[in-house]
Amino acid sequence: MKWKNDLFIRAAKGEKTERPPVWLMRQAGRILPQYRAIRSSLSGFKELVETPDLAAEVTIQPVDELDVDAAIIFSDILVIPEAMGLTYEMVEKKGPWFPKTIQTQKDVEQLISGEKAAAELEYVYRALEATKKGLDGRVPLIGFSGAPWTLLAYMIEGSGSKTFSKAKKFLYTQPKEAHMLLEKLTETIIAYLKQKAKHGADLLQIFDSWAGILSPEQYKEFSLSYIHKIVNAINEVPTTVFAKGAWFALDEMSDLNCNVIGLDWNTSPDFARNALGKDRVVQGNLDPCVLYSEPEVIKEKTIKMINDFGGNHIVNLGHGVYPDTPLDGVKAFVNTVKNYKY
Amino acid sequence: MKWKNDLFIRAAKGEKTERPPVWLMRQAGRILPQYRAIRSSLSGFKELVETPDLAAEVTIQPVDELDVDAAIIFSDILVIPEAMGLTYEMVEKKGPWFPKTIQTQKDVEQLISGEKAAAELEYVYRALEATKKGLDGRVPLIGFSGAPWTLLAYMIEGSGSKTFSKAKKFLYTQPKEAHMLLEKLTETIIAYLKQKAKHGADLLQIFDSWAGILSPEQYKEFSLSYIHKIVNAINEVPTTVFAKGAWFALDEMSDLNCNVIGLDWNTSPDFARNALGKDRVVQGNLDPCVLYSEPEVIKEKTIKMINDFGGNHIVNLGHGVYPDTPLDGVKAFVNTVKNYKY
Repeated sequence: MKWKNDLFIRAAKGEKTERPPVWLMRQAGRILPQYRAIRSSLSGFKELVETPDLAAEVTIQPVDELDVDAAIIFSDILVIPEAMGLTYEMVEKKGPWFPKTIQTQKDVEQLISGEKAAAELEYVYRALEATKKGLDGRVPLIGFSGAPWTLLAYMIEGSGSKTFSKAKKFLYTQPKEAHMLLEKLTETIIAYLKQKAKHGADLLQIFDSWAGILSPEQYKEFSLSYIHKIVNAINEVPTTVFAKGAWFALDEMSDLNCNVIGLDWNTSPDFARNALGKDRVVQGNLDPCVLYSEPEVIKEKTIKMINDFGGNHIVNLGHGVYPDTPLDGVKAFVNTVKNYKY
Repeated sequence: MKWKNDLFIRAAKGEKTERPPVWLMRQAGRILPQYRAIRSSLSGFKELVETPDLAAEVTIQPVDELDVDAAIIFSDILVIPEAMGLTYEMVEKKGPWFPKTIQTQKDVEQLISGEKAAAELEYVYRALEATKKGLDGRVPLIGFSGAPWTLLAYMIEGSGSKTFSKAKKFLYTQPKEAHMLLEKLTETIIAYLKQKAKHGADLLQIFDSWAGILSPEQYKEFSLSYIHKIVNAINEVPTTVFAKGAWFALDEMSDLNCNVIGLDWNTSPDFARNALGKDRVVQGNLDPCVLYSEPEVIKEKTIKMINDFGGNHIVNLGHGVYPDTPLDGVKAFVNTVKNYKY
């Protein structure tokens, strides 16, 4: 056995397990006092992402503190645009900001891509190695990437946005350039994920954080087709696809050649099982705001969710844990799952 | 006949029409140069909302400029919290901001509600009367209100938010106070909408703009139940319910005692017709970003949408028109519908 606790990987592969595994998206972060201590000693978020020993340290913190069944490497989806030549800044309390954005075909052509771009991300591979060493086989380690559409959205928009209307406008008015950019992103993501698997990631998750703002038609053309290419290219380790808000494409997503489908909290177990069948492993999907409740409410809602999914399930929230979530709420959630028996 | 062009009301009532009517959410606003001219001469957005003759003028502008089949009174959903005692400011480029928010049962108890609160909104009723006079029977006039949940969300959160996590936390941790507040909002909305009908609104639309951030369970308990009460209480004129992002409750919404169900752009005609049946009048739902495209793309996508809904349809976007939408795009959209024949 590769891990002392291999529940997460067994569940991801669709094996029957004694209980569902549990971890939280953004578990390495502001919910933990020990994270905040490290973070406040640094110049910024990016310093933490780019310093392998520190990234490894905060990756392992939730395993120590919460005893979750998987670690996820502390990093950012925007390291890929940066590796391709488009640098970003993380502005305190505002989020990511790109001084230069993609506007023209020439802008797309100037980006590097594929293995050459992936080679720019040595600090991520060093962080994975340091984490593996630190974990010493306790739990599997998850690597991740943004999906091509979500990364394109930031590269066009230049920052977060409620509507991403500039990015969507780009798809409608410059579809040729959009597909060129999505191809380059896809090549880069594949090369990057292969490197991540090589350097220690035991499962790879793709985050399509802005799936939900596309029309069903645009989603199929500009996002899902590229996610297919990525999961088809990754054979090294199991894969998870989490497309937030893409309920309208869940039927089509059942054809994805990936192991696990992530679900947001709007998606009821019934709806998910109808679209995906009972054998597909799903991940999620408690409303992150449930963790503000009293422990008994958290317990009740967590157990109900596990029962309603009826197996083939990795427990998580339906979104990254919110930074102001009380640690006691997080622990009530994790402990409920750890005490559950199928 | 009450109107020179009564297509919108006939369609809302489910009568067969020669073509679908068309209007746009936020059609009175920044897409029109004549709106921007008035707006720039004023101290702020709220001055425009609170000055009946000016509100009427900008309400009529899109009827003049675009020849749409309905006008919608220029106003804001947050006039209701303000009438109940919670004032707000509209901060340029940031959106609404409440200096004081609701935290405790005492805060809820101190709010006025029902007819007493509705009586604070005389400026809206004067604006409706001035608009009716100015329209002179050309097209029907739509009045509107925010839904109780969406208004509660702002009253707790104090501003817009990506997650509305404070408002959702309130539902989980103070459900009793939440229901008290939702009851008071519901009474006020009913009284307000009845006044609007009395003063000239020919149809009343309820906007549940933040429906989509609730879990299906919370949506039923904290939002849909109150929308039921509202539409059951309004018998004066036809009603429309637009709950953005509430795809997970669309089946249940088919039981609403309203005339029209609004749909956002994520919702395919197939999905909507499966949930609502072919006889329910639906409103929407072109992706607002389509209007950034060339006229022939706009035309093609608009015609496809009308065909796919197959009648019982009021054409609109799936969201308010974005402020930077080119006027030519808006006109291509409207004219496509006006030239369509069933």
